[in-house]
Amino acid sequence: MNVLIVHAHPEPQSFCAALKDAAVETLASQGHQVQVSDLYAMNFNPVASAEDFRQRENPDYLVYALEQRMGVASNSLAPDIQAEIRKVQEADLLILSFPIFWMSVPAILKGWIDRVFVSGLFYGGKRVYDRGGMAGKRALVCTTLGGRDYMFGAGSLHGELYGEAGMLRSVLQGSLGYVGMEVLEPFVAYHVPYIDDGARSALLAQWRDELKQLDRRPVMAMPSLADFDDTFRPRQASAA
Amino acid sequence: MNVLIVHAHPEPQSFCAALKDAAVETLASQGHQVQVSDLYAMNFNPVASAEDFRQRENPDYLVYALEQRMGVASNSLAPDIQAEIRKVQEADLLILSFPIFWMSVPAILKGWIDRVFVSGLFYGGKRVYDRGGMAGKRALVCTTLGGRDYMFGAGSLHGELYGEAGMLRSVLQGSLGYVGMEVLEPFVAYHVPYIDDGARSALLAQWRDELKQLDRRPVMAMPSLADFDDTFRPRQASAA
Repeated sequence: MNVLIVHAHPEPQSFCAALKDAAVETLASQGHQVQVSDLYAMNFNPVASAEDFRQRENPDYLVYALEQRMGVASNSLAPDIQAEIRKVQEADLLILSFPIFWMSVPAILKGWIDRVFVSGLFYGGKRVYDRGGMAGKRALVCTTLGGRDYMFGAGSLHGELYGEAGMLRSVLQGSLGYVGMEVLEPFVAYHVPYIDDGARSALLAQWRDELKQLDRRPVMAMPSLADFDDTFRPRQASAA
Repeated sequence: MNVLIVHAHPEPQSFCAALKDAAVETLASQGHQVQVSDLYAMNFNPVASAEDFRQRENPDYLVYALEQRMGVASNSLAPDIQAEIRKVQEADLLILSFPIFWMSVPAILKGWIDRVFVSGLFYGGKRVYDRGGMAGKRALVCTTLGGRDYMFGAGSLHGELYGEAGMLRSVLQGSLGYVGMEVLEPFVAYHVPYIDDGARSALLAQWRDELKQLDRRPVMAMPSLADFDDTFRPRQASAA
């Protein structure tokens, strides 16, 4: 299996980085090929802009998704985007490793999605969700945060972190699921800044164990285009 | 009323920019003071990093929120962050103006939140939601997207865009609501790349009308700390 880990933490010594390193070691020891895009170390540019296109379909008015499609077709996307696209194409499993910033991904990782998940390749027209361009690949989020586990979930202070009403739904469904990936249940390390070394070691051991059993990991429910007509209206609506 | 509009679209001639311009004109004509942070025009840096702190509490290990608190206390945050904080502090109403990128805000706007919503001022310790540092201010999202309105909502292809299970929940609740702002129901312009000039003019007129009636605009439900104990556990849990 080829694995791509996209890691986005500003502190190289963070516990989040330790989880990333544990994933590299564990998956490599299982015989998998592992590649890491460490976005902070790469000084990755997260800002989607006209600069992303070496040729322009319409130089006078930027429609970003349109230029992405043209850039894919003419092989003229910016080199840093092309390099990341290639890594995703080669991967069977994509792991996003990040600390929760404002109930979502840090901006540098949001921009990796904005710029790399290009129209015409990751999705396009009617090719979304189970017909998305990255169908057949799996995705797994590994994340750290300061809050305690009981602060998330139905009826809790913040509500669900993942799941049908999850804070992370724009990432899990709206991005990873949207392009067709099978989205595994996230690994979440709660309360990280406040726990001791023993608790951290236990979390690392749990993460290593779970990585060895990915085939048994729950898969998140995503929309299926079979339930919608050609205009993306629900098929059961006419019978309702 | 002082209004801050934070705008994040890479194309200055976009319909999203026209909505932003309409907001500036309409609100100014009502006698309000309006300031705009046009993040693309400002070349705003969205990447939260150690560079954001001119002094460090711990130069050997970056805990971003900790350094934010120290930076607030010692007035040593990076100048671009301080300038944006000042604008938010002066504002009675914050408008976020952006196109939906991957069911959320573009990275440049995510990074504005990551860097500007500093711990120790926007929130801190138990000061979140209705006790957040920005309580008393209002927030309004104005957004454009390619999808049609029927593709969003319960039972639809993508599920809710806003609301309790909304794709935008990390922004509306997890960011704007979290810091104490009263979050007004978003203004959403659907199907924008595909509609004609007449439909665009109608949307602009509707937006102008709605801006003149903000006091009647529905306010989104947010958690209230009165419903949770000092450890942020639901108060009703003991009776359950």
